[in-house]
Amino acid sequence: MEIFYSDEVFDGFLRLPAEETAHCMRVLRHRPGDEIDVIDGRGTLYHCVLQEEEGAARHGKSVGQTALARIVGSEASWGSHQYRLTLAVCPTKNPDRYEWMAEKVTEVGIDTLAPGIGERSERRGLKTDRLHRILLSATKQSLKGAIPELLEPQTVMEFITGLGEASADELRLIAYCSDEVKPRAFIMELLAKIKAPEATPQVTVLIGPEGDFSPAEVQAAMAAGFVPVSLGSSRLRTETAAITAAEAVYLSFPFE
Amino acid sequence: MEIFYSDEVFDGFLRLPAEETAHCMRVLRHRPGDEIDVIDGRGTLYHCVLQEEEGAARHGKSVGQTALARIVGSEASWGSHQYRLTLAVCPTKNPDRYEWMAEKVTEVGIDTLAPGIGERSERRGLKTDRLHRILLSATKQSLKGAIPELLEPQTVMEFITGLGEASADELRLIAYCSDEVKPRAFIMELLAKIKAPEATPQVTVLIGPEGDFSPAEVQAAMAAGFVPVSLGSSRLRTETAAITAAEAVYLSFPFE
Repeated sequence: MEIFYSDEVFDGFLRLPAEETAHCMRVLRHRPGDEIDVIDGRGTLYHCVLQEEEGAARHGKSVGQTALARIVGSEASWGSHQYRLTLAVCPTKNPDRYEWMAEKVTEVGIDTLAPGIGERSERRGLKTDRLHRILLSATKQSLKGAIPELLEPQTVMEFITGLGEASADELRLIAYCSDEVKPRAFIMELLAKIKAPEATPQVTVLIGPEGDFSPAEVQAAMAAGFVPVSLGSSRLRTETAAITAAEAVYLSFPFE
Repeated sequence: MEIFYSDEVFDGFLRLPAEETAHCMRVLRHRPGDEIDVIDGRGTLYHCVLQEEEGAARHGKSVGQTALARIVGSEASWGSHQYRLTLAVCPTKNPDRYEWMAEKVTEVGIDTLAPGIGERSERRGLKTDRLHRILLSATKQSLKGAIPELLEPQTVMEFITGLGEASADELRLIAYCSDEVKPRAFIMELLAKIKAPEATPQVTVLIGPEGDFSPAEVQAAMAAGFVPVSLGSSRLRTETAAITAAEAVYLSFPFE
């Protein structure tokens, strides 16, 4: 099943952006009249009939060839999951590892990816353009309608203070390596406690950098309601810890 | 914590192979008398005192500089887990994806990785040398004493017929995409059933290629006691399905 993406849905029609149009009509050789499936990245899948390609200028600017498609049906919350998961993950030294993680957690199912720069982070930047493309491609590939939101990189402190009060059904978890707080609760046990079929569980997980969180960051997180959590007995790399946290939530709330 | 590897453990001493010696003495600048930690790849961690480097020839063959280390203590089953997991995973079209998966499932914790060539596999070979290096490095990195066994690539049919009878405490699972068998049991529910604190649960999971298993392969697997399993509602790539299966077992039997 081939999925396309459009960020321009209007009355009964949508427009494929230039890159998607090229892939649809040049690479896959779709023709006007063909049926195609298009997500809006916000959760809806549209069944469409491809129309003609359009000219190269919009708003007086050249944008390459784009294609119109007529909407003939739609499915809301397509490929959605039964939880809301925000992963705040510090950049890895090797950016490939972060990009791989972003792809995997998107396939598995997350809602927000927040790159957080820790006080001890060696890498302090990320190529968000590349990450956006990876999130879109993994969303299409895993048959989901909603692309995870990618927040702008911010410090871990900014992320924590920006969260505000936790709601009653929100679980905030912090995974870090140092042995200050022990024994820590195991993530599956904490998730089992919030299994409530009526409400959508909301989970936020903070994953530290290779050098771990600073004591000040841990303190700020605890003050904001984060619970220190164990991801099991293995020592996991940053990106593997992020994947493990996403899998724990996915496997705890498996069905739509 | 820096871990080295030796495949030559004898009475009270062990020998670091040339590559490990170079890393230990040239890169990390360890000197004779330094304490180092060495795994044998079969489950034991040895605390050692580094001795002098040795000459370059053994059995009449040049092998580069190797170093002896005197064993002063040891820990059996170091970084072990409370289950036995065999993952049989068909090669992915892109070999990077397979190597990444191998690293991640090693960090999480598996015992055997069996590359299985499906009838519909597009890729029919794998660089096992590279995979061996990746498994070793991920084992050291995640602080485990045992390197997962890497089987030689074989066909899925050979793998299934080679398994023999399932033991009473063994769970065999096959994850595939086609909708012939529905509803499938969810992996976490099947794993919950075998939770037995006294015995070590044994789990074997078959993960198909991009083109899925052939009907003959599915039939052969069912005849060998494999149970069709669901890994949740997301459509996962081959390597993500393998990671998800490993995480499901790891998160179900979290502690040593």
